[in-house]
Amino acid sequence: MSALNQLREDRLVEAIAELVAQPSQRRVLLGIGDDAAVWQPSRSHRSVITTDATIEDVHFRRDKTAPEDIGRRAMGAALSDIAAMGAWPVLATISIGLRTEDLEVGLPLYRGIAEVAQKYDCAIAGGDVSRAPAIAIVVTIVGEVRPSHIKTRAGAQPRDVIAVTGVLGGARAAGYAKLPEPRMREGRWLGANAAVHAMMDLSDGLSVDLARMCARSDCAALIEQIPASRGVSDADALAGGEEYELLIAVARRAFPHLACRFAKRFGRELERVGFFREGEGVFLKTETGEAPVAPAGWDHFSAG
Amino acid sequence: MSALNQLREDRLVEAIAELVAQPSQRRVLLGIGDDAAVWQPSRSHRSVITTDATIEDVHFRRDKTAPEDIGRRAMGAALSDIAAMGAWPVLATISIGLRTEDLEVGLPLYRGIAEVAQKYDCAIAGGDVSRAPAIAIVVTIVGEVRPSHIKTRAGAQPRDVIAVTGVLGGARAAGYAKLPEPRMREGRWLGANAAVHAMMDLSDGLSVDLARMCARSDCAALIEQIPASRGVSDADALAGGEEYELLIAVARRAFPHLACRFAKRFGRELERVGFFREGEGVFLKTETGEAPVAPAGWDHFSAG
Repeated sequence: MSALNQLREDRLVEAIAELVAQPSQRRVLLGIGDDAAVWQPSRSHRSVITTDATIEDVHFRRDKTAPEDIGRRAMGAALSDIAAMGAWPVLATISIGLRTEDLEVGLPLYRGIAEVAQKYDCAIAGGDVSRAPAIAIVVTIVGEVRPSHIKTRAGAQPRDVIAVTGVLGGARAAGYAKLPEPRMREGRWLGANAAVHAMMDLSDGLSVDLARMCARSDCAALIEQIPASRGVSDADALAGGEEYELLIAVARRAFPHLACRFAKRFGRELERVGFFREGEGVFLKTETGEAPVAPAGWDHFSAG
Repeated sequence: MSALNQLREDRLVEAIAELVAQPSQRRVLLGIGDDAAVWQPSRSHRSVITTDATIEDVHFRRDKTAPEDIGRRAMGAALSDIAAMGAWPVLATISIGLRTEDLEVGLPLYRGIAEVAQKYDCAIAGGDVSRAPAIAIVVTIVGEVRPSHIKTRAGAQPRDVIAVTGVLGGARAAGYAKLPEPRMREGRWLGANAAVHAMMDLSDGLSVDLARMCARSDCAALIEQIPASRGVSDADALAGGEEYELLIAVARRAFPHLACRFAKRFGRELERVGFFREGEGVFLKTETGEAPVAPAGWDHFSAG
């Protein structure tokens, strides 16, 4: 875990976003920096697109993961970004990299991909297979969303409730052996609710991703309670990573009713974490007061 | 070069196509097996999507290629698939894999990507950066095309003329130091012409890709002349690879007029290669008769 690398990665993404901010992007309504990009294929439609890489020794260990599970993970992670926009998937393209001696892994890997895609009615439209020094899968998904249902990371407002769609830290505690499910139905349902002001998935852990939502929404956050999985420490639940619960900002007055309807519909609690407020940064309520939370989640450039 | 590996790769792609042929794909009009997939975002629109990987030591050597050129290559290769459908690009997502110590390469690499994208008015809508054991870039492009202008690989008919949009073998002769240009304007123009029955790009070399067009179109091909770059042998021009000239099937009677208009518009010859005929396989006209051509082009699983 390295805060320095996290910073370097975030800065690189910022520099890239600046570089590609072209005046010609008139049809792209939301670009780099959110879970997915949004564009307008025609006047009445909004499409979203997201791309997600799953790489050997970074996102999985080959000796510990069946090829089918690698495929399931690759598809699930990309679908989670679609869910986080309040959208549903239409189609995917798959780019696979394999060592020459690993060509046989291609088919079971694809079986895992196809299984998860089918479950959420996402067509696999195309892709390529290429030689590579490690197993790598890049899934790109195109989805659709009603214009009024799009939820970005930038909509959180001071006094909004911070909530997540499930308890955290389970994947980390299980050594990432448990495959998380993308919250497709939950994302679509929450996206359709006007009281939900912002949404993103927690693929990098609560502390990192909540800080990102704060930065994009120009506000601060106070964590009052950490919804940890059974047997998981608060610190582990906070760091998380490789989980696909959705993080949302909900209008304060609407939260109790929304939580009640959510529990009835999905048979699971909408977990209250704390609230947003003016300022910047993420803070944790302690017995004696408050402590700033250092971002320490899943770091692509040092973990693995 | 290994025909065995080529075969194994093609078989894997076939097996994958079978695996993902789901009944739920009603909005996907053209799936795996062409340059790009086609789908219908709304009743009156057709979108195309393609994904293309550029991987260190497979598609480029780091010590021989500037980061900007790696980026240009990645974007150019994906755009070429869009051109091959008769479509134009709308937006791209970029997935980049980098070693931790290579994070600094990210920005110049992206500069190359953005430069080529901007040239062809393609917005960069999103992407991700991930740790990886080698430099890898996966570009996914969404494009648009009028329904009547879509050109697949499957439309070639017996007696159609085989033609390519330029001379071949230059990239191979130059040790792949020269960056080929995607034929965007040419593809769109040829796509709009009803006499063009089939189109694909030559990224894997004429012998391999012509065999693929024959297989998809259920016919055979006779090569009468090989349009080789100056100083390039016929064998090298035939094998090619990493070039982006377009391969087309043109109605025999329309060819002379089309070639004339093409030359006037693009200042370059539309090169006649031979013709399609009933049967299967690719043949080369020799002094004494005909010889079958073994597919021997760019092979992702053995070249590099």
